[in-house]
Amino acid sequence: MIIKVLGSAAGGGFPQANCNCRNCADVRQGRPGVQARTQSSLAVSQDGRDWVLLNASPDIRQQMSQTPELAPRPEDGLRSSPIKAVAVTNGDVDHVAGLLSLREGVPFALYASPTVLDALAANSIFNVLDPKIVPRVAMTTGVQIELAGGLLLEAFAVPGKVALYLEKAAPDLGTRDDDTIGLTISDPTSGARVHYIPGCAEVDAMLAERLRGAQLVLFDGTLYTDQEMIAQGLSSKTGKRMGHISMAGADGSIAAFDRLDVKRRIYVHINNSNPVLRDDSLERAHVERAGWEIAFDGMEIRL
Amino acid sequence: MIIKVLGSAAGGGFPQANCNCRNCADVRQGRPGVQARTQSSLAVSQDGRDWVLLNASPDIRQQMSQTPELAPRPEDGLRSSPIKAVAVTNGDVDHVAGLLSLREGVPFALYASPTVLDALAANSIFNVLDPKIVPRVAMTTGVQIELAGGLLLEAFAVPGKVALYLEKAAPDLGTRDDDTIGLTISDPTSGARVHYIPGCAEVDAMLAERLRGAQLVLFDGTLYTDQEMIAQGLSSKTGKRMGHISMAGADGSIAAFDRLDVKRRIYVHINNSNPVLRDDSLERAHVERAGWEIAFDGMEIRL
Repeated sequence: MIIKVLGSAAGGGFPQANCNCRNCADVRQGRPGVQARTQSSLAVSQDGRDWVLLNASPDIRQQMSQTPELAPRPEDGLRSSPIKAVAVTNGDVDHVAGLLSLREGVPFALYASPTVLDALAANSIFNVLDPKIVPRVAMTTGVQIELAGGLLLEAFAVPGKVALYLEKAAPDLGTRDDDTIGLTISDPTSGARVHYIPGCAEVDAMLAERLRGAQLVLFDGTLYTDQEMIAQGLSSKTGKRMGHISMAGADGSIAAFDRLDVKRRIYVHINNSNPVLRDDSLERAHVERAGWEIAFDGMEIRL
Repeated sequence: MIIKVLGSAAGGGFPQANCNCRNCADVRQGRPGVQARTQSSLAVSQDGRDWVLLNASPDIRQQMSQTPELAPRPEDGLRSSPIKAVAVTNGDVDHVAGLLSLREGVPFALYASPTVLDALAANSIFNVLDPKIVPRVAMTTGVQIELAGGLLLEAFAVPGKVALYLEKAAPDLGTRDDDTIGLTISDPTSGARVHYIPGCAEVDAMLAERLRGAQLVLFDGTLYTDQEMIAQGLSSKTGKRMGHISMAGADGSIAAFDRLDVKRRIYVHINNSNPVLRDDSLERAHVERAGWEIAFDGMEIRL
């Protein structure tokens, strides 16, 4: 199985267009030790020919142009794409807006939770994806789907939060419905398997059980500490309020994974405020000492 | 007045992600004489400090990162943007999807026709732009609006077509309502004035009257000939069906402008099928001999 990180940043990307925090200012000025990142998306393939996108970020066109594997093959005619499926983990703009850029009449299957499919159905702009060409398939948690190309896809519920634009007056945090899901992709021929969880409020017992002993997990690396955006003056919201567990601390993901025996752990969906984005930061050193990797755009993993 | 072409391509960009036509294949391979282009958008400023975007393309984040003038200024605090207003000319994905990438809580004013505002209101995903932070202002054709920064904005109806995802069973072509508009931006202090018309089905008498003697027009350069996409096997649609006048021919824009005495004529919104995208093509030579320029990403015009 081949896994390519198309975009390793959280919503807004790195730098975020309107942000002048130290990280964003430094990357904008081209300072060494910080690297620009586009928004959250992976591409996965069994054989390098047929690909499934996990999340469709607003940066999808730029990401595709930087990924030769996703260009149409000359032998496939004038209009084609090696992207045979797209699966999205929630309804956030940074995970669905890129669907609008896949509107040019080439078939693929779109997999999402019923919650997200309802949100797409309620927004007529997504009708640019003709359902006759792009079937929308509801993922039922715990049910495996066979993708074009031979990989298996399975969704599982994770503690999370509904997309911001779907929030009611009182946000329902840490719910356990299908507002936020993780995805397991496996290759039935090789047995390779990856768990992808770009948004997660908490590693609870059920999630821990799923991940225990796993070969590879790509996990929510939005924030280093829960108060990080408040401390930097960027937002009034904690990580918990945004539905994101932090890396550090007693209730953080580093601690939660310490007991799970996951062979390879990679942080994705990294917010521009996160100090691990600086190659020389103490926080980066701490995360790496704990056995984690920080994803970067173009990172390729073979299982 | 400063005008920057952020994106000079039509919807899909150049190359278009799923397209293997000769133009797209050549630009993807880095052949000389063809240049990559992002999707349709301009930035305009009176003084280089405050900017208005004309259309918000899906490539807006990439475009902003390539345009230092649109980065937040250090003296404006942690979160800010020199983009004070966005005006859109229709509801097409290539002109509105970028609004979703301006969702990070920095104020600007959004100007659109009532038709487009209705479409945005009917799509809850655009609620990521909080109306308290991003007021939505209806442009009435023929009424001047003063923008932050001192420029004046005026919308005018042009023969066009409703956005694809809003089309009813029978597309209403060449209508004269506010489905498709052009924009005139003027500087009351210098008298500079630009007309921007990225989509236009026909140069009729009313439009000709408005443009006669103009200093600068940026105009719909989607197709060179009406049958171009059919002839190349890319689509079953004529330019007319898509609401776009062609460059060439007796009813094309080159002929229509021949009698209008416009001082500077620049094609924007250029489709990947258009042979003028090749620096060495006969069509490019023809267009340039007729006094037209072909916009490119990063092109800057000062009036």
